[in-house]
Amino acid sequence: MKTALHPRRRGLTSSFADEKIEALLVTSPANWFYLTGFTGESGALVVSRKGTNLITDGRFLTQGRAETAGVHILQHKGSLFGAVGEFLKESRFRRVGFDSNQVSVGQLQRLRKATGTRVRWVATPGKVESLRIRKDAAELAQMRRAAILAGDVIQSAIGLLKPGIREFEVAAEIEYQMRKRGASGPAFETIVAFGERAALPHARPTAKRLRKNELVVLDLGVILGHYCSDITRTVHVGRASKRIRTWYQAVLEAQTAAIAAAKSDAACGDVDGAARKVLAEYHLDQLFVHSTGHGLGLEVHEDPRVARGQKRRLEPGNVITIEPGVYAAGIGGIRIEDDVAVHADRTEVLTRVPRDLIEI
Amino acid sequence: MKTALHPRRRGLTSSFADEKIEALLVTSPANWFYLTGFTGESGALVVSRKGTNLITDGRFLTQGRAETAGVHILQHKGSLFGAVGEFLKESRFRRVGFDSNQVSVGQLQRLRKATGTRVRWVATPGKVESLRIRKDAAELAQMRRAAILAGDVIQSAIGLLKPGIREFEVAAEIEYQMRKRGASGPAFETIVAFGERAALPHARPTAKRLRKNELVVLDLGVILGHYCSDITRTVHVGRASKRIRTWYQAVLEAQTAAIAAAKSDAACGDVDGAARKVLAEYHLDQLFVHSTGHGLGLEVHEDPRVARGQKRRLEPGNVITIEPGVYAAGIGGIRIEDDVAVHADRTEVLTRVPRDLIEI
Repeated sequence: MKTALHPRRRGLTSSFADEKIEALLVTSPANWFYLTGFTGESGALVVSRKGTNLITDGRFLTQGRAETAGVHILQHKGSLFGAVGEFLKESRFRRVGFDSNQVSVGQLQRLRKATGTRVRWVATPGKVESLRIRKDAAELAQMRRAAILAGDVIQSAIGLLKPGIREFEVAAEIEYQMRKRGASGPAFETIVAFGERAALPHARPTAKRLRKNELVVLDLGVILGHYCSDITRTVHVGRASKRIRTWYQAVLEAQTAAIAAAKSDAACGDVDGAARKVLAEYHLDQLFVHSTGHGLGLEVHEDPRVARGQKRRLEPGNVITIEPGVYAAGIGGIRIEDDVAVHADRTEVLTRVPRDLIEI
Repeated sequence: MKTALHPRRRGLTSSFADEKIEALLVTSPANWFYLTGFTGESGALVVSRKGTNLITDGRFLTQGRAETAGVHILQHKGSLFGAVGEFLKESRFRRVGFDSNQVSVGQLQRLRKATGTRVRWVATPGKVESLRIRKDAAELAQMRRAAILAGDVIQSAIGLLKPGIREFEVAAEIEYQMRKRGASGPAFETIVAFGERAALPHARPTAKRLRKNELVVLDLGVILGHYCSDITRTVHVGRASKRIRTWYQAVLEAQTAAIAAAKSDAACGDVDGAARKVLAEYHLDQLFVHSTGHGLGLEVHEDPRVARGQKRRLEPGNVITIEPGVYAAGIGGIRIEDDVAVHADRTEVLTRVPRDLIEI
């Protein structure tokens, strides 16, 4: 497994010619895990044709040696970015790439101070991400497992819903079930929103108790073997009104249309548009206040963005969420979310949970 | 409570004269929560004497209105930093501060592109953090509750330890107990490390089962009412060897010495030095591979750093961890960590759990 990461580093360095860089500084934990297997939380990776160097502090040395292969590990004691600069200067690199979306203005100042004019810093955003966007077979297998686990957890959580239970009690049970079933944790703060609170797309669980005739939005994901999943289901307590049924039907149709549109070579903006068009037919598009989905992988939000106007085309190996919703202050919200993998000839829904309206 | 946040914004703007800025861009969620009460995950805050403006997207509008008072909320649809730039240009601010440790190189480029030469961007790192470092009475009361809850959880986790249990099962129980007792979640990924894995200061829970004669390091924290706590205890399964007892005694004495040194007006480097000196007397200082502690508050790692050479002096209202440890590859590790609040006349240990070696 460790040595299987060498080709990723080779793939990365083979793209260095584009910007004429000799080395790339990698500062995001997801990116250095992808390239080396290192799971430490602090450090910096320098990848070049000459080799791969991980600069980290004393807390992560033993861990770094155990987790990586073919990576030279250096310990720093003072400022991390000062040490990275010193290392680059000594290595005599002249053009070094960095991710301008991840390196702060202050970090770049410290790097420049350490390297002086010897090193020319070149903004090369998204180089590792552009590899990560196409998942290989092993990654897809892991994401399938993460998606299925999220589905199992959401189904057991739906079984817990009964009037009187509190939002945070449901959230606690959900995250406990994830862990018990082998997840390293939730992929994001679990959303459990009852009644009017379901109108907040990113509601945090509170002490609110569930009552009859309320909507419930459950949105959760697990991290399993480092890969994330993300699923949402909406439940109604008691028999839903005609309006709620119509809204649910609209969201379900919008999601179905977007999943059908999520084919290899489709523009991401068109996938978003497919969901939005259905909601417009129901005159509900004004209540759909976010984008249709996002890429998923080592991070819960990554490329590609499935949003209005996005021209990027889907490719085989992309994994995205499809999650339209409608939100009405004072009433509540409805969202249905699944994870899909794009293949050359088909689109695979990774999450395997029924999508019909559940009335409990 | 909401209106109690006005003085914080006033305190912030009163410091604008130092760098001759008219407005400050605040991009960190902890900072905008501190200043406004907004708990959304995406947006940007602009604070000036003219008022406070929150720019966010459709997902967080209802939430922003419900959570804040005296804050003007603007919705953006395209790029956040483009919208922030447009707003600043329209507001006719000429010198705007930003946190160079939090704003990425790419974000600053997008801001500059939107504002053109009309706005002069001034790096003013740590302005909000320098207010947050001094906790007020309400914050200290909340941090006391968070610390006590972490102590309760760690004591119940120690009760679970028996040969055969897996690291991730203990972690699952710990995080479940946090939630059940009202925490919004763990302050960081819970560390449960058995045997040789305890030599990794930041070990992630695995499927490893607990065996006799192993050390167990438990390191956990809760987020309760937005404030973090952080506690570590080390347990031995069975009767500890003479060496382990000596090492435990050394770490306990080092921690006691650092807590005693953590007085108002003491330099943080001297608090770190107090722990290091005790370990050196035991010839164990080479096995202490990290710093003695860190500030704690809305974030689990904040100012001040309690590390070698840090000249910053402790002030009343500072809350820090004191967590020396020793780590030996192939044997395991020992760490003892408590949270302390610095007052003018005394140092208060917030975590209330016995510190003697527990043999189970």
